Amino acid sequence: MIAIVKESATNDQLQHFVKWIEGRGFRTNVSRGENETVVGIIGDTTQIDPFLLESMDIIETVRRVSEPFKKANRKFHPEDTIVDCGHGVKIGGGNFQVMAGPCSVEGKNLIEIARCVKDAGATMLRGGAYKPRTSPYSYQGMGEKGLDLLLEASAELDMPIVTEVMDPRDVQLFVDKKIDVMQIGARNAQNFSLLKEVGKTKTPILLKRGMSGTIDELLMAAEYIMSEGNENVILCERGIRTFETRTRNTFDVNAIPVLHHLSHLPVVGDPSHSTGYTRYVRPAAYAATAAGADGLEIEVHNCPQEAWSDGAQALTPAQFADAMKRIALIREAVTADLDKE
Amino acid sequence: MIAIVKESATNDQLQHFVKWIEGRGFRTNVSRGENETVVGIIGDTTQIDPFLLESMDIIETVRRVSEPFKKANRKFHPEDTIVDCGHGVKIGGGNFQVMAGPCSVEGKNLIEIARCVKDAGATMLRGGAYKPRTSPYSYQGMGEKGLDLLLEASAELDMPIVTEVMDPRDVQLFVDKKIDVMQIGARNAQNFSLLKEVGKTKTPILLKRGMSGTIDELLMAAEYIMSEGNENVILCERGIRTFETRTRNTFDVNAIPVLHHLSHLPVVGDPSHSTGYTRYVRPAAYAATAAGADGLEIEVHNCPQEAWSDGAQALTPAQFADAMKRIALIREAVTADLDKE
Amino acid sequence: MIAIVKESATNDQLQHFVKWIEGRGFRTNVSRGENETVVGIIGDTTQIDPFLLESMDIIETVRRVSEPFKKANRKFHPEDTIVDCGHGVKIGGGNFQVMAGPCSVEGKNLIEIARCVKDAGATMLRGGAYKPRTSPYSYQGMGEKGLDLLLEASAELDMPIVTEVMDPRDVQLFVDKKIDVMQIGARNAQNFSLLKEVGKTKTPILLKRGMSGTIDELLMAAEYIMSEGNENVILCERGIRTFETRTRNTFDVNAIPVLHHLSHLPVVGDPSHSTGYTRYVRPAAYAATAAGADGLEIEVHNCPQEAWSDGAQALTPAQFADAMKRIALIREAVTADLDKE
Amino acid sequence: MIAIVKESATNDQLQHFVKWIEGRGFRTNVSRGENETVVGIIGDTTQIDPFLLESMDIIETVRRVSEPFKKANRKFHPEDTIVDCGHGVKIGGGNFQVMAGPCSVEGKNLIEIARCVKDAGATMLRGGAYKPRTSPYSYQGMGEKGLDLLLEASAELDMPIVTEVMDPRDVQLFVDKKIDVMQIGARNAQNFSLLKEVGKTKTPILLKRGMSGTIDELLMAAEYIMSEGNENVILCERGIRTFETRTRNTFDVNAIPVLHHLSHLPVVGDPSHSTGYTRYVRPAAYAATAAGADGLEIEVHNCPQEAWSDGAQALTPAQFADAMKRIALIREAVTADLDKE
Repeated sequence: MIAIVKESATNDQLQHFVKWIEGRGFRTNVSRGENETVVGIIGDTTQIDPFLLESMDIIETVRRVSEPFKKANRKFHPEDTIVDCGHGVKIGGGNFQVMAGPCSVEGKNLIEIARCVKDAGATMLRGGAYKPRTSPYSYQGMGEKGLDLLLEASAELDMPIVTEVMDPRDVQLFVDKKIDVMQIGARNAQNFSLLKEVGKTKTPILLKRGMSGTIDELLMAAEYIMSEGNENVILCERGIRTFETRTRNTFDVNAIPVLHHLSHLPVVGDPSHSTGYTRYVRPAAYAATAAGADGLEIEVHNCPQEAWSDGAQALTPAQFADAMKRIALIREAVTADLDKE
Repeated sequence: MIAIVKESATNDQLQHFVKWIEGRGFRTNVSRGENETVVGIIGDTTQIDPFLLESMDIIETVRRVSEPFKKANRKFHPEDTIVDCGHGVKIGGGNFQVMAGPCSVEGKNLIEIARCVKDAGATMLRGGAYKPRTSPYSYQGMGEKGLDLLLEASAELDMPIVTEVMDPRDVQLFVDKKIDVMQIGARNAQNFSLLKEVGKTKTPILLKRGMSGTIDELLMAAEYIMSEGNENVILCERGIRTFETRTRNTFDVNAIPVLHHLSHLPVVGDPSHSTGYTRYVRPAAYAATAAGADGLEIEVHNCPQEAWSDGAQALTPAQFADAMKRIALIREAVTADLDKE
Repeated sequence: MIAIVKESATNDQLQHFVKWIEGRGFRTNVSRGENETVVGIIGDTTQIDPFLLESMDIIETVRRVSEPFKKANRKFHPEDTIVDCGHGVKIGGGNFQVMAGPCSVEGKNLIEIARCVKDAGATMLRGGAYKPRTSPYSYQGMGEKGLDLLLEASAELDMPIVTEVMDPRDVQLFVDKKIDVMQIGARNAQNFSLLKEVGKTKTPILLKRGMSGTIDELLMAAEYIMSEGNENVILCERGIRTFETRTRNTFDVNAIPVLHHLSHLPVVGDPSHSTGYTRYVRPAAYAATAAGADGLEIEVHNCPQEAWSDGAQALTPAQFADAMKRIALIREAVTADLDKE
Repeated sequence: MIAIVKESATNDQLQHFVKWIEGRGFRTNVSRGENETVVGIIGDTTQIDPFLLESMDIIETVRRVSEPFKKANRKFHPEDTIVDCGHGVKIGGGNFQVMAGPCSVEGKNLIEIARCVKDAGATMLRGGAYKPRTSPYSYQGMGEKGLDLLLEASAELDMPIVTEVMDPRDVQLFVDKKIDVMQIGARNAQNFSLLKEVGKTKTPILLKRGMSGTIDELLMAAEYIMSEGNENVILCERGIRTFETRTRNTFDVNAIPVLHHLSHLPVVGDPSHSTGYTRYVRPAAYAATAAGADGLEIEVHNCPQEAWSDGAQALTPAQFADAMKRIALIREAVTADLDKE
């Protein structure tokens, strides 16, 4: 960490500051420039709040030099982490997986959709039983019954399931039922009570980036889970909030290579929430794959009989099947060893 | 709600759509323009997901006409709500209150700070016992002991206290201890489990806007609490996340009159988090007061003995006392009946 | 356009409003809902400022129904536009082109870089002679000499060139020198004097999205150029400004399919500015291609002798050559007719 | 400037880097920490592109220590600048001025409005003759005739005028006509050709912040003007673009004290564009004043005869007169010497 001292600071003030820092167990390195003096603070600076230093009278600004996350940091763990999601499905480190299924578990049609997505090449089944909804008047999900429907489908098709947990009080239920992967949604990306609670389990966690979460905050959320003992974390870029309103969110496709650069954890793209409109889901899914994602989470819904309700951002099974073929080709294009050819 | 139908839609498709909408219990009004046809959807459209309609082939876009919140809506409740915070302190409807105190409860100095802020004119004491921290390695607060220290200060000084609750499992403890006002922090602004839980109590709630929460989402969060039965909600603007990095957050001072226009609930400004630097807290406090806030929440810390740790965004008691005088003058300037003079 | 009238409006006020609108040559359609009345305004509403209507006492909100752009609108021009960039190079409507070269024209190494990028498969040469720089103390480009170097390279290698024009007073020079494609940079995305000036020429324009420009504003900028008579506009997504700081800009990859949906103009992605770091340029280039871009603009710089200065976001010729092979494979994956196989 | 070197860098690489930096005329200071080495770069680093350094293989990140602006920097010019706007009106350094008038100059009603705003206490007249409009189909202003109308009003009422210049080719006309203050609009905040052109005059410049311009970019734009020789720059906060859509822009009221902290130039707030709705203009004007602005720019329009067209964000003369009284009281509250009383 580096503190830039104001030109106006007296030598005494500077000495006082350096002593104060050293009194907290850090080493320092003082360098005098033309217009300002820089104090390097050496040691485990994850403990220091940079805003605190910046509030001091003689300090101009403070810059972090090292990342505030450790367990999620590629620097201290250079090889890719591979997360085992159960049913023989692994993600990360060269393993690419597609999680597909309906936004919400609605009933018996789940098994039908599950079969469609499996036939098209999906290896994991997604579906929401507990639904975070902006309005208290909107449908809040089937709850425990929804979990049971997911487990039935999982057993019948031998696929791991991914489903959201919203409340720390529900975590034990998810563990007891042996849910394969627990999802933390964007709205709970800084719900630290929930992050700690799932950190105490061994269940793999699909951790979504918050709507206005920075990449560093996503990694700090992962750190919360990992620091409790659960290192099975899969990161998910699902679009961020910007000024653009033509799509539901802005898909930050850059985040995929950035996360790979900073962390060893697997990174998944969610083209459904990143766009919000069926017509843009496939281009976004291709983009995520091309950018090097380790997997995708895609909403798929079948409703040939009820033409109007395929969900604002869901693909039909036919659209999904077409997409899966192109996704495989793109994955090949970006991972091929071109020198060999 | 209004659905704009594409030019390319056939008459049959349009009829099908209208029938489908009416089958869900809504009335419709169809109006044909030059390049598109508009279908007005009349009824309680809070139930309809606009994204769902937009996903339909013949639909161009959908626009909400009425707000998705009801209980928080000034339209259905034109008079200002006044929230009784205990100890005779009321906020809203012309009652202006300042909540001040340290960011975190740290120990015995709490009572000292509390006395300072009371002397300067603050009517409520704030202090964090449970702290949401970006890093799992940062100090997480004193917990229950912190609550007890707050209650002691409250009793001694006859001031209501405001303190954050982060976990639905802690709500009962806050109720049992008779905490005057429970704060929901920015990171939990869409933690729906927590919102529902505090909604089941009668304790006044200070509800902070999420870091990237729209004004409508803040009102929907209030709606979650109110729909469970607790109508004692105080809204708080605390800065939003933008591209600007010279301050910790961007203080959306516009939100104050906008919230007053849309809702009957009291609105408080938090100049400490909105700026993140002591040197900007006072101008932001003045701005919030001038924009018509019903109150302010300000961090104050006393540390004559430890000159370095007054907190990045805390005012000293002396700065706070000066600010309180100007705040009173500004409040007078914006509320004065100029015609009388 | 739709105006929502407040519940509080009297019948007289509503009639007054309707008469006022009709007096301006529009037709209206009034529909009464439970809580509000909706007035549809029919006619060429591109002339109406929605903010003006919203300022009226009885009006709650106003929503645009039709897009404010016409000439750039796919609705009125369903087939893809193909822009002829000279030297036999066409873009759009299935024609995919890569523009590559150095950020700034620096001197004789231009021809070397140009040869490298051509060998790797680039079909257009980019390079800046006039440079918009945030600081007045930064290098401002070679100016006219830079144009001449570009023209030499163009002649020698038979490739069209793309280069930025910043000042309306320079447009005639660019036309006289027969520059193939004039680029309008992000900072001039709403420099209407410049847009009108290039609109009076017949030279193809590569129009970059503003740093905080919405997709609609990009299309309105195109409309400015087209309304002056120049329909040879190529749109370019180059990243937008958001709260994320790990990359220079946030690459809005969604914008590519959205622009294709709304407009018939070709759409190019710029992975260099969208990321700002060499290490992320290739993933972003792949993502843009996968999302359906009609072309890419990529910075490439050769400097084996001066290892330190390859430009913060430039690819080396070797990196570029590798990338071009994968780009070709991805382009194939997204455009292949899978049914035929 | 500080460069953080990767742990993986060899000693040789580090030496090479240090030599390269020193070869460019800078001094260095190398400090080794636990996980990384920090190189301080000492000298006039405004010349270095931090992105260039960050692209180097051994560099982790680069942080600027000193601001990239000089002439606009309070560090090198501690006393407030006072700008003389003509007709005896000075702004900055304790002088507070209100600029008011219609958005566009429309004709003879200008003099009427001018008289109203003068009577209410405004000291400068604003009005647009050249209008930057998002749509090419919108009214583009009266042009030169509008300037003449402004000059007539100015002469008659002895008030300086502020009016926007959009094109570098028009600057000479503005100078010839002796326009008191030239405004640079938000859309031209990085139109460097225009900034340089007005920098060559001696006319005071009202420089608006770009819609997505950072505070630093605003100061760099001022630097462009000042580096050409014109130091009469007035900064203007007019709202920035964020995700919030309930107002036209988000008024970054924090920017006012931040600009005062970083720069010696006068700072004006524009509550009309910062909100976009008449009903929010007054609260925003009060907030700007309370935050310490040196002045305000407010749109006022009189149209008793044409009730519908008072402009979406304009105040009526009566609203303006009421506001001026409160503004004076607020200005007093924030500048009063409380110790004396």
